[in-house]
Amino acid sequence: MRNNDFTDFTKARSLLKSNWEELENFKSDQQKGEPMPPFEKPIPEGVNLVELPEFKDSVVAKSTNIFEAIANRRSHRKYLKTPLTLQELSFLLWATQGVKNVTPKATFRTVPSAGARHPFETYVYVRNVEGLNEAVYRYLPIEHSLVLHRSDRYLREEIIRATLDQAFVGEAAAVFIWTAIPYRTEWRYGPASHKVILLDAGHVCQNLYIACEAIKAGTCAIAAYSQELMDKFLKLDGIDEFVVYLAPVGKVNHE
Amino acid sequence: MRNNDFTDFTKARSLLKSNWEELENFKSDQQKGEPMPPFEKPIPEGVNLVELPEFKDSVVAKSTNIFEAIANRRSHRKYLKTPLTLQELSFLLWATQGVKNVTPKATFRTVPSAGARHPFETYVYVRNVEGLNEAVYRYLPIEHSLVLHRSDRYLREEIIRATLDQAFVGEAAAVFIWTAIPYRTEWRYGPASHKVILLDAGHVCQNLYIACEAIKAGTCAIAAYSQELMDKFLKLDGIDEFVVYLAPVGKVNHE
Repeated sequence: MRNNDFTDFTKARSLLKSNWEELENFKSDQQKGEPMPPFEKPIPEGVNLVELPEFKDSVVAKSTNIFEAIANRRSHRKYLKTPLTLQELSFLLWATQGVKNVTPKATFRTVPSAGARHPFETYVYVRNVEGLNEAVYRYLPIEHSLVLHRSDRYLREEIIRATLDQAFVGEAAAVFIWTAIPYRTEWRYGPASHKVILLDAGHVCQNLYIACEAIKAGTCAIAAYSQELMDKFLKLDGIDEFVVYLAPVGKVNHE
Repeated sequence: MRNNDFTDFTKARSLLKSNWEELENFKSDQQKGEPMPPFEKPIPEGVNLVELPEFKDSVVAKSTNIFEAIANRRSHRKYLKTPLTLQELSFLLWATQGVKNVTPKATFRTVPSAGARHPFETYVYVRNVEGLNEAVYRYLPIEHSLVLHRSDRYLREEIIRATLDQAFVGEAAAVFIWTAIPYRTEWRYGPASHKVILLDAGHVCQNLYIACEAIKAGTCAIAAYSQELMDKFLKLDGIDEFVVYLAPVGKVNHE
C-alpha cells in the first residue's frame, strides 16, 4: 500500500501469509476426535440422480497436448450458441472436482487440496447443455452425477444481477459456481484453513480453463459478485456454506 | 465451525467472501491517477541474465494430452536423482508465469489473474538443473530469463528449516517459490485484492502440476511454512513482498 492513506491493508495482507506455526498450540477438531465432516453434502431423499455419461478420450483427445492448452488459454467472455454436450459437461466436472479414489479418510481428486480436504461443492447453472433442462444442478463427485437443485424461472436474470450485471454470464452454456464449506478444512487445520481454501479454489478454476481448451470451449473466472445475491441464488445460509468463485463456460471460436 | 468454542472463525471466513460491492465507495490508486506499479521487480544493475532456452513442442509433446495430464496428476514427494534440463525448467517457468503479450497496461500470461495484475514474483531454488549452479534465481517473465538472487552455502538446510522440516523439499531438483507483491493488485482493486491474490496463486500452482505431467516430473504444493524464515530465505521485507506459496519439483517415476 502506498497512497491510500485512509486505508490500512496491513491486516488484509496478513491473510496472505502463512500462520502454520500457530497450529503448534492449536488443537483441531480432528485432534479432539470430532467426527470428520462428510465429503459431500447429503443427497436429498427421493430425488433422481442424473448420471453423467462416461467420456472417452475422443472427447478430449483432439490431439490437444498440454503445451497447446497452456499456450492458447485465455479468458473468454463471448460464447457461441452451440450447446455443450452432456459428455463435455461430464468431462469438465470430472476435470475440476472428479474423484479418482475414495478412502475412509479422504477423497483424491483431479485437483490438489490441502490435506485432501476438498472444501467445495460445485453447482452448475445449466442453460444450454444437450439433454438437460435449464436449471441449477449440484455435482456429486463420488457418484459422478448431478442432482437437481433449483429450477425456477428467471434464473438467468438472477445470476446476471448477482454477478453485478456482467451480462455475458447470461450467454454461457453453463456456469460453474463453487461454494466453500469451510468446516471441512477447519476441522483439520483450524486457523490455517482460510488461506488454503482460496488457493484450492484457484487450483480448481485453473483446471476448468485447461479442460475447456480441450473441447473448444472457454471460460472467464469471476470473483466480482454480490455475496448476498449469489448465496441467495443457491439458497445457501452464507455461514456454513457460501459462494467463493464462479466461471461461465461456453463454446468459443478457437483459431 | 462447530466445536472449537474458544475460536471464532466467522471473521476468518469473511476473507473467503466477495466484498466487491465495497469498491463502489472506494477510490483506488488507479482511479486517483497514481502510477501503475511495474510488472516485474527491477533487474539489478550489472548482473548477467541467464537466458532460458526455447523449448520445443518436443519437450512436452510426448503425446501427453490434457486428459492424461489431469487424470494422472497427483502430489509427489519423492523425486528421482535425475536432473531437470534447462529446457524443462524453461517450460515450467513459462507454463506458470510466462508472458504471451505485453501492453502498456498489462501483461497477458499463461495463467489468469484478476485484472491481469499478476501480483507475483517467481524465485527458483535450483539444486539439480543441468547447466545451472546451485543457487536461488528470480524469473523475469518478460525477458524469459533468470537473474541470480542468492548463492550462499547452506541453502538446502535453510529451506528445509523454513518449510518446517519437510525434508523432501531438500530432495527436489528445483523449488518454485512464489512471492506476492500485493500493491500490484491493490493499486487497482484496493480491499478486494487479497482474496483474488490467493485465487491467482492457486491458478499458477495448478499449471505447475499440469506442466510437470508433460515432462515426467512431479510436484507437491506447500502452504505449511514459516513466513519469517521463508521471507528471510529470499531476503524480502515481508511487507511489500513476501512468500505466499511454494512447490518443489523433481523427476518422478510415472507408471
